[in-house]
Amino acid sequence: MHILAPFRGIIQDFRGRKVFYKQDWIDAFCSGTRILAPTTYIFFASALPVIAFGEQLHRETDGSLSTVETLTSTAICGIIHSIFGGQPLLILGVAEPTVIMYTYLYNFTKGKADLGQELFLAWAGWVCVWTALLLFLLAVFNACTIINRFTRIAGELFGTLIAVLFIQEAIKGLVSEFRIPKDEDPTEEKYHFQWLYTNGLLAVIFSLGLLFTALRSRRARSWRYGTGWLRSFIADYGVPLMVLVWSALSFSVPSKIPAGVPRRLFSPLPWESASLHHWTVVKDMGKVPAAYIFAAFIPAVMIASLYFFDHSVASQMAQQKEFNLKNPSSYHYDIFLLGLMTLLCGLIGLPPSNGVLPQSPMHTKSLAILKRQLIRRKMVKSANECLNQQGSNYEVYGRMQAVFVEMDTTPIPVVAKELKNLKDAVMNIEDGGIRDGKLNLEKHIDAHLPVRVNEQRVSNLLQSLLIGASVLAMPAIKKIPTSVLWGYFAYMAVDSLPGNQFWERIALLFITPGRRYKVLEGDHASFVELVPFSNIAMFTLFQIAYLLLCFGVTWIPIAGILFPVPFFLLIFIRQHILPKLFRPDYLQELDAAEYEEIVGNRNCSHSMSFKAGDPVLMGNENNEFDTCDTEILDELTTSRGELKLRSVSFSEERISQVHPEVDEPRAE
Amino acid sequence: MHILAPFRGIIQDFRGRKVFYKQDWIDAFCSGTRILAPTTYIFFASALPVIAFGEQLHRETDGSLSTVETLTSTAICGIIHSIFGGQPLLILGVAEPTVIMYTYLYNFTKGKADLGQELFLAWAGWVCVWTALLLFLLAVFNACTIINRFTRIAGELFGTLIAVLFIQEAIKGLVSEFRIPKDEDPTEEKYHFQWLYTNGLLAVIFSLGLLFTALRSRRARSWRYGTGWLRSFIADYGVPLMVLVWSALSFSVPSKIPAGVPRRLFSPLPWESASLHHWTVVKDMGKVPAAYIFAAFIPAVMIASLYFFDHSVASQMAQQKEFNLKNPSSYHYDIFLLGLMTLLCGLIGLPPSNGVLPQSPMHTKSLAILKRQLIRRKMVKSANECLNQQGSNYEVYGRMQAVFVEMDTTPIPVVAKELKNLKDAVMNIEDGGIRDGKLNLEKHIDAHLPVRVNEQRVSNLLQSLLIGASVLAMPAIKKIPTSVLWGYFAYMAVDSLPGNQFWERIALLFITPGRRYKVLEGDHASFVELVPFSNIAMFTLFQIAYLLLCFGVTWIPIAGILFPVPFFLLIFIRQHILPKLFRPDYLQELDAAEYEEIVGNRNCSHSMSFKAGDPVLMGNENNEFDTCDTEILDELTTSRGELKLRSVSFSEERISQVHPEVDEPRAE
Repeated sequence: MHILAPFRGIIQDFRGRKVFYKQDWIDAFCSGTRILAPTTYIFFASALPVIAFGEQLHRETDGSLSTVETLTSTAICGIIHSIFGGQPLLILGVAEPTVIMYTYLYNFTKGKADLGQELFLAWAGWVCVWTALLLFLLAVFNACTIINRFTRIAGELFGTLIAVLFIQEAIKGLVSEFRIPKDEDPTEEKYHFQWLYTNGLLAVIFSLGLLFTALRSRRARSWRYGTGWLRSFIADYGVPLMVLVWSALSFSVPSKIPAGVPRRLFSPLPWESASLHHWTVVKDMGKVPAAYIFAAFIPAVMIASLYFFDHSVASQMAQQKEFNLKNPSSYHYDIFLLGLMTLLCGLIGLPPSNGVLPQSPMHTKSLAILKRQLIRRKMVKSANECLNQQGSNYEVYGRMQAVFVEMDTTPIPVVAKELKNLKDAVMNIEDGGIRDGKLNLEKHIDAHLPVRVNEQRVSNLLQSLLIGASVLAMPAIKKIPTSVLWGYFAYMAVDSLPGNQFWERIALLFITPGRRYKVLEGDHASFVELVPFSNIAMFTLFQIAYLLLCFGVTWIPIAGILFPVPFFLLIFIRQHILPKLFRPDYLQELDAAEYEEIVGNRNCSHSMSFKAGDPVLMGNENNEFDTCDTEILDELTTSRGELKLRSVSFSEERISQVHPEVDEPRAE
Repeated sequence: MHILAPFRGIIQDFRGRKVFYKQDWIDAFCSGTRILAPTTYIFFASALPVIAFGEQLHRETDGSLSTVETLTSTAICGIIHSIFGGQPLLILGVAEPTVIMYTYLYNFTKGKADLGQELFLAWAGWVCVWTALLLFLLAVFNACTIINRFTRIAGELFGTLIAVLFIQEAIKGLVSEFRIPKDEDPTEEKYHFQWLYTNGLLAVIFSLGLLFTALRSRRARSWRYGTGWLRSFIADYGVPLMVLVWSALSFSVPSKIPAGVPRRLFSPLPWESASLHHWTVVKDMGKVPAAYIFAAFIPAVMIASLYFFDHSVASQMAQQKEFNLKNPSSYHYDIFLLGLMTLLCGLIGLPPSNGVLPQSPMHTKSLAILKRQLIRRKMVKSANECLNQQGSNYEVYGRMQAVFVEMDTTPIPVVAKELKNLKDAVMNIEDGGIRDGKLNLEKHIDAHLPVRVNEQRVSNLLQSLLIGASVLAMPAIKKIPTSVLWGYFAYMAVDSLPGNQFWERIALLFITPGRRYKVLEGDHASFVELVPFSNIAMFTLFQIAYLLLCFGVTWIPIAGILFPVPFFLLIFIRQHILPKLFRPDYLQELDAAEYEEIVGNRNCSHSMSFKAGDPVLMGNENNEFDTCDTEILDELTTSRGELKLRSVSFSEERISQVHPEVDEPRAE
């Protein structure tokens, strides 16, 4: 039926967002310079992969495209989206699927005499034209309404495949460090065996070093040591920091070693001819033979479907309902805009960008924390003022609610409902109690403040501008050793797996029956308790087989470009075949839309940290609180940026089997 | 008063052990081939460090002593002690203090024109003579009665110093891999810059690789993956396995690399003249000038005191009361025997051996597990027989007790008391229950079987013989890359720290007040709850200062040999000065004789694993149980081999501050 109402989605989205457009800019300025925290955070989070993908593209396309182009595309699309986009929380960037696709395109053109390397970008331009067209159609005919068909099984299979491809990239890269790169002069000193071998060994050290340290730094927030500020700094900026550290270390090699060992990122500078020719690629598009122009339709279908899928899912993740966003979503309009940007990128010979994970939900998360800090501060301030004027508990609460309404512009009845717990808490502080312990008050605020996100366009715009600026920093970026990037690919792969239920089920297969209680002890996805192991195993084995199939397809020389097909086939399989093989309720659990998690007996500590305000434990430093707050958010978010729903086990008898002493947990 | 009764201790010990001597041999044969498990376990645990120390000695003494000598000494002393020793559970070996002392001795002789390298062993022989004499005196005058003066503070300070020295050794070693070893020909190809550098890089990879993998494998028993058998195998033999793996990997370097890169352990073969001259060192002892013979008394005092300390503590650890050993201790007699062995080693130019940690308690632990398996198997067997004959619960229990008495030769009243819980459990199984669920029965046995150790001399003798045999395996041992040994030194250091309260208090200093609750969540030494932080900090800072002092002393060229002095000074300080600075009860806590641990709210799982027999969780494989049993033992033992006493927090209010939801642990 949606098909019959073309443009409806786009128009609705447009109208919906128009109302908030002005607010989207104003809100940002209220938060002043503090907006820079989420900005830089997201900038680093999205710049690094783009650089890495640039190097990958450079290697796969013999230098036709490189980091300069990926950064430029990310910057341009980011700026356009942050200004004209529907959902400004969505972060855009050149992603792995684009790189893979462009690699296939390149290999195809290279093989064809009448195209060849010089017409690669021109032909890719045509592919973009078709892609744009298809995206327009998808937007116009409200295809986004089927987005809920993309269930966990498809998303996680895709995520796992990307992880596998990252690992493959890391290994290929590491091996290549021991080899002489193609079309390089093997007589150069740096390619003599001993230096080649030295380069390889250094590569092993740098890449493993980065992988290990980056993984460690990601978990910094839950460290025991260091101040809260330091911990969150490391957790937020640890990975770029490590890239910096290892790059710096790479300069500590003795001077006797010939230049070019260790190998560093190779990319022409943005003002060199090599990175300028693509701007005028539109001129060459006429030179592409008609047959190929039509042939371009096939990859276009693949890319369009991939983008449609990726962009929508990323957008969905950025506005999960737990974030309590006030502004409406804008799926159709954003796909339409994505079409425009893809077209533009095609015409100026850049690889297109699309919505990326996990940066988009990371963006929302960081803005939520920011908003919380702002509201909390003001609330405490005005509440204390009120106290100093000997105001009653009721007045104190009144002030706080007023602040909230003012800062959040939510209709009062709604707020009243959301703040109910806080109200009760405040009212119940017996007189006096509220006075001698102001901290007491802050504690209640911490415990009962509802989540709010600072929805605006500035952070996204600024981070895009920073990406643009970093194009000019290429001379510095080129100092990064390639081996560090291989380590970074491995890091991206490993880091993407936790929270991926498919992966966690694979792990589960390797746990002996005698050890399964360990899983139940920790927090665990609900299916672990609700689905018999045999079914879990069957379902997982099916997924593994399917993953291998998809991975296999990517290896087929040209036809590999069809690798997205299995995914869309999977959506069909999920709808019509799997229900025949699995009990619906089990299937529901194994392919749940939301990540339901059951608190394990062992983790008494989450509820703990929620009580983080407790002076005895947390010390009175205010910032200590924010830290713990974000720490919990970390624990409650999968690497994909998905929020977990925590619930307590509902199968009592199972739990009690597992924890016979659950009632006196400290009994020996 | 003991002084007035010379020889009393030795005679008592001798009489006490004589009674059990025959039994010590017979018991072993009852357990048949299963005795080989603890044997090989201890063999690997004590062979590796001896090899590493050999390499260290070789480097420090310019090859006067090397791995061959350390292995030989360990084998000879081990054999003697296992046959004539008082406490056959005690494991002997050349330990780090000996290496340090011999290094000082060597540097001293090297400096003196009228001694020089050739008279080094002769003079060391004299030192051993004096040392032996002093040990005799200590034994004769029952000095061991003061062993309880060696409180935690001294032991842990010593342990930490050794760890620091290991780290220093590892770093020195790693750096040396980038340098040309002294008195080697720098024109050799392997010492050309590029290969020297390659050697260094390989060393970094191998040593860090070993450190990382070894540390991982030690924790294997608590892994989730793999079968119980595999996990315990890796946990028991992981470290030697990793040394093997990395040594094997070191042969994967391309053939184009010159021989000697990576560097491998250097040691003459046992049948080469270099390792034969020391046997006849007694002949040279006459050549040592009289002055030096008397001078040898000073180092002798140091070595004697160190040995007295080390040997007694190791022995103490091997017979902690939780092991329920039946045979008496034999401190005085063993010190006397140690004197004899030191004398012997001195005369044949070997570095002496003494009781080592953590191998000695590891030995007892492994024998306890063995005994448990034996008793359990027989009990289950006879109980089931009784069941098949429709015996009553009482009869069933009767059979079980009979088995226990028979296998343990403990007077029945004692057994009856120890088995009370088991009896109650069995009696309370309502009729029928005992029949359909035989597992039920095994579960009760698992839960209530008291700890027993298979006290005998064979495992110790066999492992010493194996060490002796491995001297002949030198050609194979020489294939180990030195870098792997540096990694192993780092491993020994890191691995020795957990469970060292001094170290844990240092760590505590770096935890911000806001994070201390994390410590209380996990299992934690009792002082954390009972001593105010300020006192903990003061006490720890004092220890750190003292540690730095001791470490500083080791750096003094010749006088460094006096480094044990501070330790014995510490015993005086502990007795007379610290009590003035700290409240006695706090001091009691901070310097407790036993390692008291309080179960953290979070670890519901220990009590869990105790219930390991539960079929739902553990599967019915018998071995699964033993695994979990040893796993708990692991958790309950410090790296030094000290058993922890688990108790529940006694300061309720503190706990409830920390765990507000302690009563409904799963509440969110």
